[in-house]
Amino acid sequence: MSDHRFMLDPKLTADTHPVVRWRFSDVLLMNDARFPWLILVPRVPDVTELFQLAGPQRAGVVHEAMVLGETLQGLFSAEKINTAMLGNVVPQLHIHVIARFSSDSAWPGPVWGVGAAQPYSQGALRQRLEQLLSGLPNL
Amino acid sequence: MSDHRFMLDPKLTADTHPVVRWRFSDVLLMNDARFPWLILVPRVPDVTELFQLAGPQRAGVVHEAMVLGETLQGLFSAEKINTAMLGNVVPQLHIHVIARFSSDSAWPGPVWGVGAAQPYSQGALRQRLEQLLSGLPNL
Repeated sequence: MSDHRFMLDPKLTADTHPVVRWRFSDVLLMNDARFPWLILVPRVPDVTELFQLAGPQRAGVVHEAMVLGETLQGLFSAEKINTAMLGNVVPQLHIHVIARFSSDSAWPGPVWGVGAAQPYSQGALRQRLEQLLSGLPNL
Repeated sequence: MSDHRFMLDPKLTADTHPVVRWRFSDVLLMNDARFPWLILVPRVPDVTELFQLAGPQRAGVVHEAMVLGETLQGLFSAEKINTAMLGNVVPQLHIHVIARFSSDSAWPGPVWGVGAAQPYSQGALRQRLEQLLSGLPNL
């Protein structure tokens, strides 16, 4: 499902790599090798809060976020999944889904605004995308 | 709906004031007057991730989180609602729902781990709880 008026926010475009397109949302990989950090963006224009979506669309997006979180937990043996909708910097509705470990550099704090992003090398990016694509279902 | 084995995490008990009991979750007020900061805790024992809940229970909890966010936005004319499930410090499943403003002390960053909490005075707490109870529906 898509709305032709939808355009991904330029900052999200700049900071991420596309992973897969699901029915309601695009799945993006944050270009920061410190964390397995995915971003789900519902393809709906002019929406900043999940509660603004109509019921079925909202349920579809939530389902996609849950599948993404559960898949990351399995793929990476994450100790905790962080799922968050902030939008203070980029208002366009997007959901962070992040695999967290007590050994990661931001633990137990949140990842936003901590240190500098470490962009993936080409090889590490290819490997990470293959890993994600092998684990994520088609939705 | 409740499970008699459910017990609120001691840190959540210590850091919050109870606001209202909804069908699936308890609504708590974080004892930090810097932000209108609510916490929703589904009364389910031994759960750390929303995706672990069965479908109807999960949908009920998500509905409560959406109502809470929309109510906070209306009550406080918030510029943005932050909705997040982290759990790196307190693993018991809980959902932060926070009204954010470009004038608040953590903007545009997240609120967790920023500065020191400012406990409510007795008068400010009573006023805040009355305001919340007048605005929140019965669920």
